[in-house]
Amino acid sequence: MDRTIDWDGEAVVTVDQTALPQAYRVLRLRDVDSLIDAISRLAIRGAPALGGAGALGVALLARDHDAQVVRLEAERLASARPTAVNLRWGVNRALSRLAEGPDAVLAEALAVLEADIKANHDASGRAAELVREVCERRPLRLLTHCNAGRLATVGWGSALGVVRHLAAAGEVGEVLADETRPLLQGARLTAYELAEMNVPYRICPDSAAATAMAQGLVDCVVVGADRIAANGDVANKIGTYAVALAAARHGVPFIVVAPESTVDEAIADGSAIPIEQRDPAEVTHYAGVPIAPPGAGAFNPAFDVTPADLVTAIVTEDRVWRPLP
Amino acid sequence: MDRTIDWDGEAVVTVDQTALPQAYRVLRLRDVDSLIDAISRLAIRGAPALGGAGALGVALLARDHDAQVVRLEAERLASARPTAVNLRWGVNRALSRLAEGPDAVLAEALAVLEADIKANHDASGRAAELVREVCERRPLRLLTHCNAGRLATVGWGSALGVVRHLAAAGEVGEVLADETRPLLQGARLTAYELAEMNVPYRICPDSAAATAMAQGLVDCVVVGADRIAANGDVANKIGTYAVALAAARHGVPFIVVAPESTVDEAIADGSAIPIEQRDPAEVTHYAGVPIAPPGAGAFNPAFDVTPADLVTAIVTEDRVWRPLP
Repeated sequence: MDRTIDWDGEAVVTVDQTALPQAYRVLRLRDVDSLIDAISRLAIRGAPALGGAGALGVALLARDHDAQVVRLEAERLASARPTAVNLRWGVNRALSRLAEGPDAVLAEALAVLEADIKANHDASGRAAELVREVCERRPLRLLTHCNAGRLATVGWGSALGVVRHLAAAGEVGEVLADETRPLLQGARLTAYELAEMNVPYRICPDSAAATAMAQGLVDCVVVGADRIAANGDVANKIGTYAVALAAARHGVPFIVVAPESTVDEAIADGSAIPIEQRDPAEVTHYAGVPIAPPGAGAFNPAFDVTPADLVTAIVTEDRVWRPLP
Repeated sequence: MDRTIDWDGEAVVTVDQTALPQAYRVLRLRDVDSLIDAISRLAIRGAPALGGAGALGVALLARDHDAQVVRLEAERLASARPTAVNLRWGVNRALSRLAEGPDAVLAEALAVLEADIKANHDASGRAAELVREVCERRPLRLLTHCNAGRLATVGWGSALGVVRHLAAAGEVGEVLADETRPLLQGARLTAYELAEMNVPYRICPDSAAATAMAQGLVDCVVVGADRIAANGDVANKIGTYAVALAAARHGVPFIVVAPESTVDEAIADGSAIPIEQRDPAEVTHYAGVPIAPPGAGAFNPAFDVTPADLVTAIVTEDRVWRPLP
């Protein structure tokens, strides 16, 4: 499968990201309930991939229901996860052609998929140029948090797309992949993609990223985003903010790579971005086995907000945006 | 068992901290090889507890060997873990009475145990006063990293000793316990002690501590230390530095609590503190099960160094030390 999420003529097909890297399990989702379930349990995750999922979900709905039901169900789909703005954006893109019938909705959803791959390819290509410009050392040592790779997008990847461009030119010495607790998207998914790309990498406990920078092991941080406010505040996977604080302390450039669909001009700053709180059991258990004492609770926000003053640049398919020039 | 580590007349007795909180397993260690093994695999851990273990190990040796062998084996024991200065300090304390025979060595080791409990009790009592002074809000919301409790010491605890004092006065609203990857001393051991104390707590992914502070959920950070340099740089469990960076950003006091035996005047600053690198498998596997792709490596320093400028105060049984007044 070339695309992380695609349409096979009858169903949405995707790889179950909760099973990687131990198992490569393809999911065929034939109705919106299955799709919402896959999104909720993070079988499909990553802001740009959620955009594609949202659009395809409306295409699924439009085949079987009248417009009123499609709109109601689409709202439920768009609300499945609150932080990534791309999900609702993808839903709205597909809904915009609802009056033209189900084929038009599907065509729009497929256009969203196509455009996402191109947007990530172009944004990460522009970001790779920026990395070359702001980092002197070669080969490059990059650090990333969570997974902003092809698995987080329809294809190619945003932050890991940068690694893909630079590695193709033989310029990457090592990538430190933050493991990204609690769900370990770095240790599982980013490591999987880096191994697939044949790029040298090590997994880094999230809490060791600051020390890696203190030891001079990191030339640049590249991360994705789930929502970017009008002022340049960036919501991304929990832990991104701590990485940004360490990067600022050590003068390491901190570059955010995302398609324009991630920018939410309706939100003035990060304080207004809704942050999803997830089940404490994600923290207190591992693979269903308890780590903590019985009854332990947990603080488990899925995302955090990195203030614009810590961001060197936000790079999209259209621009290099330095929030504080 | 009241003490984390003790002498039962024939052997060193301790609780296996790798098995907590799921199982409470008492270890009886009759020779220095078993003791070194317990230290290496972190069945015994925590800088002050390692001081006690070092002293008792020399007492074990002195019963069975002549002075030359004792000194050789004591060196091996003192080198079992490089970062915490207390281990070698405890070994040296016991060795200082070697010429007087095994009973004198044992008496010295028992005095080290006794003194550690008192030092931690007094240091944490002084730190509790400081917390009351620098934090206005009641009840207090504290954040700690790793385990600096009774399990990390012979008894009472250093940073968690502060919680013990404040909770006894009914002043603690909540403790956020950083889970402390990779070995989860926070989720396992600190949570165990907080449950034991009946203090409300939540486990916090290490990477979420910065967000907890950004959301105003933390009045004060209290942590222990493994070695403190002459200038006030503090080596402590990996991740402490990132917590300190976030605390500085949000104006949250960052207080280090440790017995004087943790201060190493021979080391000018943190750059000279040896940092133990541990097995990548601690990061790439959980309970023996792989998380990451086959062959994945990891960056796995056991400790980091928090520069003195981020430390509000270091509190010992003798003083409140503000490295940058």
